[in-house]
Amino acid sequence: MHQDPRPAPEFQVSAWLHAPEPPTLAALRGRVVVALAFQMLCPGCVQYALPQLLRVRRAFHRDHVAVLALHTVFEHHAANSRATLEAFAHEYRLDIPIGIDAPDRAGGALPRTMAAYAMEGTPTLLLIDRAGRLRRQAFGHVEDLVLGADIALLTAERDAQVAVPPASSRDAAGPGATCRIA
Amino acid sequence: MHQDPRPAPEFQVSAWLHAPEPPTLAALRGRVVVALAFQMLCPGCVQYALPQLLRVRRAFHRDHVAVLALHTVFEHHAANSRATLEAFAHEYRLDIPIGIDAPDRAGGALPRTMAAYAMEGTPTLLLIDRAGRLRRQAFGHVEDLVLGADIALLTAERDAQVAVPPASSRDAAGPGATCRIA
Amino acid sequence: MHQDPRPAPEFQVSAWLHAPEPPTLAALRGRVVVALAFQMLCPGCVQYALPQLLRVRRAFHRDHVAVLALHTVFEHHAANSRATLEAFAHEYRLDIPIGIDAPDRAGGALPRTMAAYAMEGTPTLLLIDRAGRLRRQAFGHVEDLVLGADIALLTAERDAQVAVPPASSRDAAGPGATCRIA
Amino acid sequence: MHQDPRPAPEFQVSAWLHAPEPPTLAALRGRVVVALAFQMLCPGCVQYALPQLLRVRRAFHRDHVAVLALHTVFEHHAANSRATLEAFAHEYRLDIPIGIDAPDRAGGALPRTMAAYAMEGTPTLLLIDRAGRLRRQAFGHVEDLVLGADIALLTAERDAQVAVPPASSRDAAGPGATCRIA
Repeated sequence: MHQDPRPAPEFQVSAWLHAPEPPTLAALRGRVVVALAFQMLCPGCVQYALPQLLRVRRAFHRDHVAVLALHTVFEHHAANSRATLEAFAHEYRLDIPIGIDAPDRAGGALPRTMAAYAMEGTPTLLLIDRAGRLRRQAFGHVEDLVLGADIALLTAERDAQVAVPPASSRDAAGPGATCRIA
Repeated sequence: MHQDPRPAPEFQVSAWLHAPEPPTLAALRGRVVVALAFQMLCPGCVQYALPQLLRVRRAFHRDHVAVLALHTVFEHHAANSRATLEAFAHEYRLDIPIGIDAPDRAGGALPRTMAAYAMEGTPTLLLIDRAGRLRRQAFGHVEDLVLGADIALLTAERDAQVAVPPASSRDAAGPGATCRIA
Repeated sequence: MHQDPRPAPEFQVSAWLHAPEPPTLAALRGRVVVALAFQMLCPGCVQYALPQLLRVRRAFHRDHVAVLALHTVFEHHAANSRATLEAFAHEYRLDIPIGIDAPDRAGGALPRTMAAYAMEGTPTLLLIDRAGRLRRQAFGHVEDLVLGADIALLTAERDAQVAVPPASSRDAAGPGATCRIA
Repeated sequence: MHQDPRPAPEFQVSAWLHAPEPPTLAALRGRVVVALAFQMLCPGCVQYALPQLLRVRRAFHRDHVAVLALHTVFEHHAANSRATLEAFAHEYRLDIPIGIDAPDRAGGALPRTMAAYAMEGTPTLLLIDRAGRLRRQAFGHVEDLVLGADIALLTAERDAQVAVPPASSRDAAGPGATCRIA
């Protein structure tokens, strides 16, 4: 994980699905946040990363770990309407909050949250600690064992101090079926 | 994990493979121990549990987590000689310490370590904390996410106190391809 | 396979992707046709049936076996535009002809080819022999071994007679992640 | 498949498991024979080839396709006794005839059937036609789709003539977890 964590930039979304209250980072303070940036038309997201996110959802207590997704569209914008996202979420049973990353104000292809985190593409996984700091940002595939370990270590940090060094020896995401920003 | 952990019984093995020094629990004190009880002729061990054990081996630092296997034969004794085990370990590239569970002194089918832990069959996974206490014993399949979380939480216990409640919400091993003691 | 095959109804598509010439059944006469009816938002199609179709594409000679897909949308019509389909085909590397099933003339939800074949939902696999007769229609998952056998047997029918009884003992598609017409 | 098939050498086995009558090639004449040469301590055999053989067993009618295994031990002989094989077959539910390849008369490591077929190692799959001719010999992994097609084409050869050219475009076995003869 990041040795010198910085505050995670607040999500900039134009709308939330499956969220009565917007799950802002401010509102989630005190819990570990696992957020997946994905696109509907990204094979690596659909075949690996989203199923993994649902496994994370089942494996950890909601009181400790908040799980959400961000629809970060940087290509094929016309094919990624909110109506399509709602149909997609319904068919894939994504019963977690999904934020629609807000479009660039200057009309660029990259949405705002994606730009704020300087993401390389999708899927990108964000791990944010109880104090709201970005502790890991991984582009591509992350092993379940390593992800489970990293999330658990963040839950074990009670005092919002960075007290525990990472136990996992491999931090880099391996090569996966990713959609990279050109 | 176990809410009221007891000291893990010392391994009773007749010989160790791949271990210059016997990795007794006494010698491993201070590290988390992940031990898998298996049999060569147990399909669930060969197809799921041993590959998972090797993933654990790669995912965690050796300074924090010791990984080993116990060959706990309770059936087909004639087919499970030491020579066969050595050939098996070679072919499956099991480059971890493997202890041969010592036979019952009274001539019973159940070997001694298996009896001391009251195991139900194979595969059985043992998680032992830095203070040498048995914190989880799972018969059958355990999800990688949950296993990674449980191991990581044990590594985070610095003072050998049971300070951190389990983060994983599902502790029970699911039904797997297990070999159950009749 | 069907013991009493009937002529396969001609595809009724509003447009073809990746097809310089429309691959009508009339034009494909003399070759075995493997056609998959799918929807972009059908998880079983995306995760199992389309990858299998690409395996079929690689496994058989083009001179003997024509492989194509039909986008048979019966739900979420707004989310399934041609532009979205083109983006989807690009991202999933579907370099095979894809026909867009023509909408119902009376404004119903079921497109025309889907209705002509009385499909139950998606994914549905059609096997059509060299003489243009429908020999198998399977809703849901079909095993690779059985599918390979069925296609091969159709290629072996040289004289357009139904000369060869099916070798595979299991014809029924197993339960899969299907999208069923309500 | 082989363009110029030769008669398949008769199996030379010292004993058969699960076979009231020895399934010699002479006795199986008239049926397609799918035979897998394997070793218990060969990971590629245990994890891929034997499960595939059982799928073949289920997919084809017994009247048309005979499925059997050959235990062709060329290394770790001491670990591969008949008693161990019986335990292995029991645990892995291999309810098919298993022939124990007869040891070399001159005391060499290579058993007789393995030598007669000039096998490179395990797993090796043999496809023998209704007329007793060797039509395919594949060392390593074979895709289910291609295997299903090849078996089906052999079943379609009614007159014991080589009437049907292979439909599958890829004949070479891909790289798998094989045990190669040194």
